[in-house]
Amino acid sequence: MRHYLDHAATTPLRPEARAAWLDASETVGNASSTHGAGQDARRLLEESRERVAAVLGADPIEIVFTSGGTESINLALQGMWRSRPTGTAAVVMPEAEHHATMDTVSALLDDGAELRRVPVTAHARIDPEVFAARLPGAALATALVANNEAGTINPAAMLARYAAIARVPLHLDAVAALGHVPVSFRSMRGDVADGVGLVAMSLAGHKIGAPVGVGVLVAARTARITALLRGGAQQRGLRAGTQDVPGAAAFATAVELAETEREQEAARLAGLRDRLITGIRSAVPSAVLLGDPIERLPGNAHVLFPGAVGESLLFLLDVAGVAASTGSACQAGVAEPSHVVMAMGRSEREARSVLRFSLGRTSTAADVDAVLAVIADAYARASGAGTGTRS
Amino acid sequence: MRHYLDHAATTPLRPEARAAWLDASETVGNASSTHGAGQDARRLLEESRERVAAVLGADPIEIVFTSGGTESINLALQGMWRSRPTGTAAVVMPEAEHHATMDTVSALLDDGAELRRVPVTAHARIDPEVFAARLPGAALATALVANNEAGTINPAAMLARYAAIARVPLHLDAVAALGHVPVSFRSMRGDVADGVGLVAMSLAGHKIGAPVGVGVLVAARTARITALLRGGAQQRGLRAGTQDVPGAAAFATAVELAETEREQEAARLAGLRDRLITGIRSAVPSAVLLGDPIERLPGNAHVLFPGAVGESLLFLLDVAGVAASTGSACQAGVAEPSHVVMAMGRSEREARSVLRFSLGRTSTAADVDAVLAVIADAYARASGAGTGTRS
Repeated sequence: MRHYLDHAATTPLRPEARAAWLDASETVGNASSTHGAGQDARRLLEESRERVAAVLGADPIEIVFTSGGTESINLALQGMWRSRPTGTAAVVMPEAEHHATMDTVSALLDDGAELRRVPVTAHARIDPEVFAARLPGAALATALVANNEAGTINPAAMLARYAAIARVPLHLDAVAALGHVPVSFRSMRGDVADGVGLVAMSLAGHKIGAPVGVGVLVAARTARITALLRGGAQQRGLRAGTQDVPGAAAFATAVELAETEREQEAARLAGLRDRLITGIRSAVPSAVLLGDPIERLPGNAHVLFPGAVGESLLFLLDVAGVAASTGSACQAGVAEPSHVVMAMGRSEREARSVLRFSLGRTSTAADVDAVLAVIADAYARASGAGTGTRS
Repeated sequence: MRHYLDHAATTPLRPEARAAWLDASETVGNASSTHGAGQDARRLLEESRERVAAVLGADPIEIVFTSGGTESINLALQGMWRSRPTGTAAVVMPEAEHHATMDTVSALLDDGAELRRVPVTAHARIDPEVFAARLPGAALATALVANNEAGTINPAAMLARYAAIARVPLHLDAVAALGHVPVSFRSMRGDVADGVGLVAMSLAGHKIGAPVGVGVLVAARTARITALLRGGAQQRGLRAGTQDVPGAAAFATAVELAETEREQEAARLAGLRDRLITGIRSAVPSAVLLGDPIERLPGNAHVLFPGAVGESLLFLLDVAGVAASTGSACQAGVAEPSHVVMAMGRSEREARSVLRFSLGRTSTAADVDAVLAVIADAYARASGAGTGTRS
């Protein structure tokens, strides 16, 4: 039997979201067509937009459907860059962001952007004062609401407030946070009248039980963002292309359910996670929990196994039927040490010795037990490097 | 009962593609994860890529899954522009391209591109010699395989040959052509060893009975294309983002079926279409078929109704249960006259008097009859402008 503890990579499609997708797929018609069939599709699309907006604390017009978190982040950062205030060039980015952000910002540097890196704490937390100190005169800033590897929850509303004070447009990546912590665009944005402070927020469907291939960018009415995909006036001109009505309907259903279940589910997952962490520490006394022990995603356990090779641990767990993650991006088949772990002040060797276990809707105590049944042995083998030595 | 004659805008999801999507949606795991669940997803993704490549006459590595035709076109044109040969600035574009191409090229002009427009014939055809004359020294060129409004099929292989001779990279938009005429990347590209001639081809799922939200860019191994979406090494680094495995599987199923049925279906649709055209001419003697009468998409009837307001005709047909299209893009609710019809040498007034009927897999004789039953009366009302006069 397989035990899936990699919900942060992708989580199973919710049956209700699948049903919503199927229902909507029966509606024939392009939502941009003016005939009756097109208007039926349009109605379903706009209802979905309203439902998403209601959950996310935004106006329907602020909801831009995209193909996923990566597109949302690219649209926000490339789009804000191209619409940046005259005379600005600095991009403020913390050191433990997701690769979609890092690689997009890296491309902006080729276009004349100047990077202002924000160091993070030993828990991968963004310190609001450190962040604020980098803001004055910047073209844009970006930050994670919750770190996708370490699980640490950032003080996003505070970051947004500092950005508003500095009059810098801010993008928040809420992909890992959605469904696990409260994510309200309006309350994080606060009472800001123009295009500064929090102006854009990225979300992905497949992290909350909607299908892969659908995401959202919340873009404030006042946000100055140049479109990335051209070809039509759909979605305020911010995102051309035939709109994916079944994807939007499924996202709406998934995000409503995620929000409805959030508090109860967070408590349940935190319970399982704490049992997992306690059990791992008992089986592997040298193991270290990374990330903030309190302000963290309920389903996340980010663990350093000193002396072990993360890839080997992952492989041994996989053979035992347990799916986890090293938390680092596998770039073209070459496993790189996690930049997040290194940003936390750990060595490259330590950054190669980390596993991320992430729990979700379908997780049970049996999944936790499966890890605990094999982790001591796997650790011994992964750190002994074939010598049989426990280190 | 509703009669849907707007298959060129979007065509119903094929039941087999829906089933493939559903099956694949049961596979939990991110195709970039190294554990067993991830590898199951990866296997399904790569099998789908191979199936798509086999139908399109390409190598699997040349198949880049995207979120649809618009993204494919943007990736190709923006990506080719950013990787253009040193010292080049000209972009060769015919005058009857899709809005996704026109708007993307328009954005390139802001970035220093110089537009070389290629006039089209009265049938909206791209004359290969006229096209070839614009090529020397260009950064890139683009062309439709079949015109999405007029239905005219272009001599795409010839355009590709001229581009190869001129050593200019060419993108083909095969969105409207796929499933209706043979579309083989390899045979259109010919025996070209480096990154010139046909290097990229755009396709959309929802035009062939796959879901909305999935498309393909065929990108030759030698193509020089800078990625549009950053954030990971997926798909040769050309398109970051968690890969949509169910979308890919559904696309593979749809494109296989479309190809298997193509010849028989083309003959069936051409028969229905010819009956539609003959019937319209009989009901409205002044009506004029636009586009090439022979080299045209089998399901396309693009008709000028002299003196009628296209939007009114569309509305009257819609009330009678018939869904068609003016063929022009509705930009933010304002109906613009079709640039395609104007590129064919027609006046703006004529460009507002055109309807596109497009047939597809679910079309029947009853759909054609429904148009013929109401077209004379609708024409009288749409051209009399409320005066009761037939013009």
